[in-house]
Amino acid sequence: MTLQKHVSLNINIRGLSESPTLAINERVKQMQSRGEKVYNFGLGQSPFPVPVPVVEALRLHAHEKEYLPVKGLFPLKEAVAGFHRQKDLVEANADYVLVGPGSKELMFLLQLVFYGEIIVPTPCWVSYVPQAQILGKRVSLLHTSFEDKWHIRADRLSELLEGEKDTYRPRLLVLNYPGNPDGLTYTANELKEIAEVAREYELILLSDEIYGQLHHRGGHVSVARFYPEGTIISSGLSKWCGAGGWRLGTFTFPQSQDWLMDAMAAVASETYTSVSAPIQYAAIEAFRGSMVIERYLWHARRILSVLGQKCYRMLSDAGVRLHSPEGAFYMFPDFSPFARELAKKNIKTSKQLCEKLFQETAVAMLPGRVFERPCEELTARISYINFSGSKSLAASETIAIHHELPAEFIQAHCEETLRGMEILTEWLTS
Amino acid sequence: MTLQKHVSLNINIRGLSESPTLAINERVKQMQSRGEKVYNFGLGQSPFPVPVPVVEALRLHAHEKEYLPVKGLFPLKEAVAGFHRQKDLVEANADYVLVGPGSKELMFLLQLVFYGEIIVPTPCWVSYVPQAQILGKRVSLLHTSFEDKWHIRADRLSELLEGEKDTYRPRLLVLNYPGNPDGLTYTANELKEIAEVAREYELILLSDEIYGQLHHRGGHVSVARFYPEGTIISSGLSKWCGAGGWRLGTFTFPQSQDWLMDAMAAVASETYTSVSAPIQYAAIEAFRGSMVIERYLWHARRILSVLGQKCYRMLSDAGVRLHSPEGAFYMFPDFSPFARELAKKNIKTSKQLCEKLFQETAVAMLPGRVFERPCEELTARISYINFSGSKSLAASETIAIHHELPAEFIQAHCEETLRGMEILTEWLTS
Repeated sequence: MTLQKHVSLNINIRGLSESPTLAINERVKQMQSRGEKVYNFGLGQSPFPVPVPVVEALRLHAHEKEYLPVKGLFPLKEAVAGFHRQKDLVEANADYVLVGPGSKELMFLLQLVFYGEIIVPTPCWVSYVPQAQILGKRVSLLHTSFEDKWHIRADRLSELLEGEKDTYRPRLLVLNYPGNPDGLTYTANELKEIAEVAREYELILLSDEIYGQLHHRGGHVSVARFYPEGTIISSGLSKWCGAGGWRLGTFTFPQSQDWLMDAMAAVASETYTSVSAPIQYAAIEAFRGSMVIERYLWHARRILSVLGQKCYRMLSDAGVRLHSPEGAFYMFPDFSPFARELAKKNIKTSKQLCEKLFQETAVAMLPGRVFERPCEELTARISYINFSGSKSLAASETIAIHHELPAEFIQAHCEETLRGMEILTEWLTS
Repeated sequence: MTLQKHVSLNINIRGLSESPTLAINERVKQMQSRGEKVYNFGLGQSPFPVPVPVVEALRLHAHEKEYLPVKGLFPLKEAVAGFHRQKDLVEANADYVLVGPGSKELMFLLQLVFYGEIIVPTPCWVSYVPQAQILGKRVSLLHTSFEDKWHIRADRLSELLEGEKDTYRPRLLVLNYPGNPDGLTYTANELKEIAEVAREYELILLSDEIYGQLHHRGGHVSVARFYPEGTIISSGLSKWCGAGGWRLGTFTFPQSQDWLMDAMAAVASETYTSVSAPIQYAAIEAFRGSMVIERYLWHARRILSVLGQKCYRMLSDAGVRLHSPEGAFYMFPDFSPFARELAKKNIKTSKQLCEKLFQETAVAMLPGRVFERPCEELTARISYINFSGSKSLAASETIAIHHELPAEFIQAHCEETLRGMEILTEWLTS
């Protein structure tokens, strides 16, 4: 027994540990720094470098030292609104854009200021529930299923809402597509149906589209097209622009939800103040876009798409249940076909699955439970990002963009990823 | 009457407005962009540019894109610890440094995780009380007086604590010196006495020393020298390094308070994640220090000191009550000698004082009430920073550092500041 420290902590914080995605990253990095080999499918970080014009813009603005407006630099807000107008064909107005140090922070502020129920379909991004815990709130989880492609269906949503006593209490539904952890996305029709239900019950939608530009076929559609008056679009530099470590996220509000934006900005002014000035200036370049950035995105999508398909085939050939990836750089396989064999190794939960796999093979994935799935469900998130983004981009640029990438490309440039997949399937089937 | 919007907001947030220091800045900037003349004594921003080697370091690291460890990049934490060891002659260990996007955000996290009373002497920095309000907490304000140089005295603190029923309940006392809004600091003896009381009652001290390097004679002393086991030192790039807009603050903990640091880091991992990577790399250069940065600080101090003394004499000659500035770039004058004349203009509160002055003369100061002073007390904060930091630094560099700056220097390089002071005193005495 160790003596308890004399601590005086907010009870909501006690027992809270570091975000699992960041924790696994730090664990892996420590192992790597000791020279140990790790197949890291744990982290949700883009493998690609920040596009050159965006890095150049940061260099150019390195001297900017002033506190910027709490909601964000106006030209940046214009660029963000323009980005959504052009890419997503939605109405978006610079006056209703809020810039924060990551969309995670913005989501926290939203949870802090919104007095109402927050509904999150699972599997979901790892931070929603801990954020609520920190604030002493509860989010309502809505479990989806493998059969539904981990999607929330409009009819199920409608059923849930019409069964309630107080149908019109304030509610916010979170949608994330292409999705973390599943790498799947909604069709325009599905979104249209969800939009209809949302309109009927006056739901606010938080549409997390941070992976929108990483739809593998460039076909991202925003739900804001079908429910503009109730949809907040979340985006940022972290994923499509490869700048996770820069910390810049954006929320774009419909005019009618400006009360949420203003309340969030008031809290922001008492907490992070504003996003780092040089980063904001550089982000203008990213959101304004250019041919160079478009080309970067085409190549990034082509690589992720081909690699995702390859990984998908390797796993499904081995007998793992999973869907063919559609966006981002994630898969959310279900290992239940191996349940009997795994049980023999004393593996009955997703946590045990990932822990044992990591110990025996140094393949790191994140267990389904951190995405709020039931503990016993044998799911896990695989991020197929452990390859050199710069080298593969450079190589892809030598192959005309309208061609398919040859099979050898992946073999040559994403060898580590494929090797990790092999080790995983061998471990499962041995 | 206007129709109320259909809003669903956390009751703690309703009525919260933007931080007054940021709000006045945005108001002044809007006026300036319309070509209107403003004498802006409202903002607490360093007038000096970021030192060249620090800007160069940001350029060099503009491509850094990875998510960094939640607590901060290790070489940066080493540099921060080294900075405090060297500058403040205190024990400081890299393992107990926490890096955040501004010390304001870190203070918010501290208020969020600490389950105990937070005691703040007034006049105090504008964000403590709104932060507590956001969290549905209360901070205990301890009013100090003009006669005590706006300092908390050890005997008063001791009296307060010994009069309590539950003497040893968890408590944290905030000290800020050189102080915002008063520009004054504590002597080593005063700090020693406070340290003794703090030790006796097991207080945790949050020692906000963000202006430490802007002590006008370079003579900053940290209370951590006298109470190392209970003092958290707060610092950052915003003030001494002129990089307020970069958003990087640091807390340096004693080992025994690591439970607070770990809890804050757990919340950080679910909110802002980590501080912007390029900014952290650049901050290493700032905290490691160099002869170039030391010279920058010498010149900055010399300019602020001479300008502060000049402004002090102008105001006290006109009959305003105030203390001779000792650090930072603030004064906290008491206009009560003009109470009768002001009352004739219907000015009975600090808010009315600042509002009327601004309307009639375009001189902007912040009213004493936003620093938690009684509404009727005719105090205000003056930031004497409306001059070109780059030009005055360049000019100062042509005058050997061991010389006094001549009177003409201020006249030539801080004309706008002096003009604002003249307008203020004319308005008071007319």
